[in-house]
Amino acid sequence: MPTPIIFDTDPGVDDAQAIAIALAHPEIELLGMTTTYGNVDVTTATHNALLLAELAGQRIPVAQGAAGPLVKTRFPPPKHIHGDNGLGNIELPEVQGRAETLSAAQFIVEQVNARPGEITLVAVGPLGNLAAALQLDPSIVERVRRVVVMGGSIREGGNVTPVAEANLFNDPHAGQRVLTAGWPLTLVGLDATHRCVLDPDSMARIAAGQGKLGEVLAGSYEFYKAFYQQALGFDGCCPHDSCALAWLMKPELFTAVDGHLTVVTEGDAEGQTIFAPADRPFIAEHWSRTPQVQVCLNANGPAVVEWIVETLS
Amino acid sequence: MPTPIIFDTDPGVDDAQAIAIALAHPEIELLGMTTTYGNVDVTTATHNALLLAELAGQRIPVAQGAAGPLVKTRFPPPKHIHGDNGLGNIELPEVQGRAETLSAAQFIVEQVNARPGEITLVAVGPLGNLAAALQLDPSIVERVRRVVVMGGSIREGGNVTPVAEANLFNDPHAGQRVLTAGWPLTLVGLDATHRCVLDPDSMARIAAGQGKLGEVLAGSYEFYKAFYQQALGFDGCCPHDSCALAWLMKPELFTAVDGHLTVVTEGDAEGQTIFAPADRPFIAEHWSRTPQVQVCLNANGPAVVEWIVETLS
Repeated sequence: MPTPIIFDTDPGVDDAQAIAIALAHPEIELLGMTTTYGNVDVTTATHNALLLAELAGQRIPVAQGAAGPLVKTRFPPPKHIHGDNGLGNIELPEVQGRAETLSAAQFIVEQVNARPGEITLVAVGPLGNLAAALQLDPSIVERVRRVVVMGGSIREGGNVTPVAEANLFNDPHAGQRVLTAGWPLTLVGLDATHRCVLDPDSMARIAAGQGKLGEVLAGSYEFYKAFYQQALGFDGCCPHDSCALAWLMKPELFTAVDGHLTVVTEGDAEGQTIFAPADRPFIAEHWSRTPQVQVCLNANGPAVVEWIVETLS
Repeated sequence: MPTPIIFDTDPGVDDAQAIAIALAHPEIELLGMTTTYGNVDVTTATHNALLLAELAGQRIPVAQGAAGPLVKTRFPPPKHIHGDNGLGNIELPEVQGRAETLSAAQFIVEQVNARPGEITLVAVGPLGNLAAALQLDPSIVERVRRVVVMGGSIREGGNVTPVAEANLFNDPHAGQRVLTAGWPLTLVGLDATHRCVLDPDSMARIAAGQGKLGEVLAGSYEFYKAFYQQALGFDGCCPHDSCALAWLMKPELFTAVDGHLTVVTEGDAEGQTIFAPADRPFIAEHWSRTPQVQVCLNANGPAVVEWIVETLS
């Protein structure tokens, strides 16, 4: 029995790699993609989601969602990381299909309610679509099988501020709503994803195995990798979003701890995910009042990368 | 030439160990101690500072300072960690001397101005006295040799909240003032102090070498250690405050990185020290607007503990 998922995404170079996995893995049933602003504008995200599925020869429903944050003013998209078109400014083919008429939030609510207890939501962008789904129907917390979020950072430090990871920084209010909603949730943040480096040899194997889609993955990877080289000084990139799927299919490759999350919504620590492990008492009780979730604090990086490459080659 | 220091302290069991080092080390000239609330009330802190010097057979000026935080409401003292009397509830001898008539802040200002460029301020409690000294005479930033602060946590997580260390949590506004004042400053926080464990054998060697003072150090250690055993599950304690002196005399035992600090003063992350390394760009410029300081991100724990024991035995 494959695992049915909805993939919430803002593609984005590392999103594209993860989408390729969701399309290729025989044990994943990709019910649909929901799109959000983040790495790119939401219309670009929708375009890219449709395109990537078509390049893999599949027709997957794509429902468009959030064009900006719930509360804060939108921060400009990181064009120096993902390119103006989200895929490293490489030339892209025409898209044939078009998005669903339903919004991302409504798509999530309808799918989850149609298959109660079965669907996993894998969210790898800012969390506005999941927050909007909770607004439409708060009771989906009882019918979602699990929510897997790529985002946040506990001990690793941030990537857009010293303490905040981009997805949570982009919409901390949505993040706080989603991470404390009380559904079964696993956070796969920088503490895990920074352990994983997709090196040029691995990408060459992926490119060779993925046909037309592989050309786009390899081309966009070059642009993304140049940013890593310049900003962080290493030859490769962290396949952040693929790690959420790696956790879903191979949780044994991660070190996960139970506890309570809070997202800082204001001030200098805006977007930070604060984690209170379940077994550690602190002076103020409110740290343990949020529902218990699971947080990945480490990963077997080489094994995760090997799983990605095997899936795609 | 010994290093002249003023030791700002809230003794406190681990403060007492550090005070013993400051009194014993031949290359440290202890000009005075300034006291603050924190581990105990400020009057208890003053009593203990006087007592510890007398037990070592020395007469050191003690100037009393802050009885509470600059802005926030005071959090109750952690009597379960340091005892009601700050020294593990052991019986204590009478104190003979008394505190200076000058406040802690004024004592700091006068000493620093009398020996420009020479004096190091070593602060191991909440930072209200140093903030008050900066209020009296902001120009001391140019005449202090260096400020060494035991406090904060960058990657290690907090000890009173998931992100905040006790000294910075107790007075985050004073912390923000002091850590961003623009003087040469080194932060020795939990990232370093948690690498160091003072085990019972080490304390036995210290007790044997310190006479009457050793009895108080060993007795208070037992109480403090019981807290560590119960809360953290190991047999020993972290000699937090001694680490500030260890950095001062043996900086080669620490891994220090230059960068910019910000202290969160409000909200869930209150008291957190946010660190932006100097060589790492972030999207918002304000992270790099605070003056550059030095932050210890690691320590050679066994070597630090060996230095403590050698100094005291």
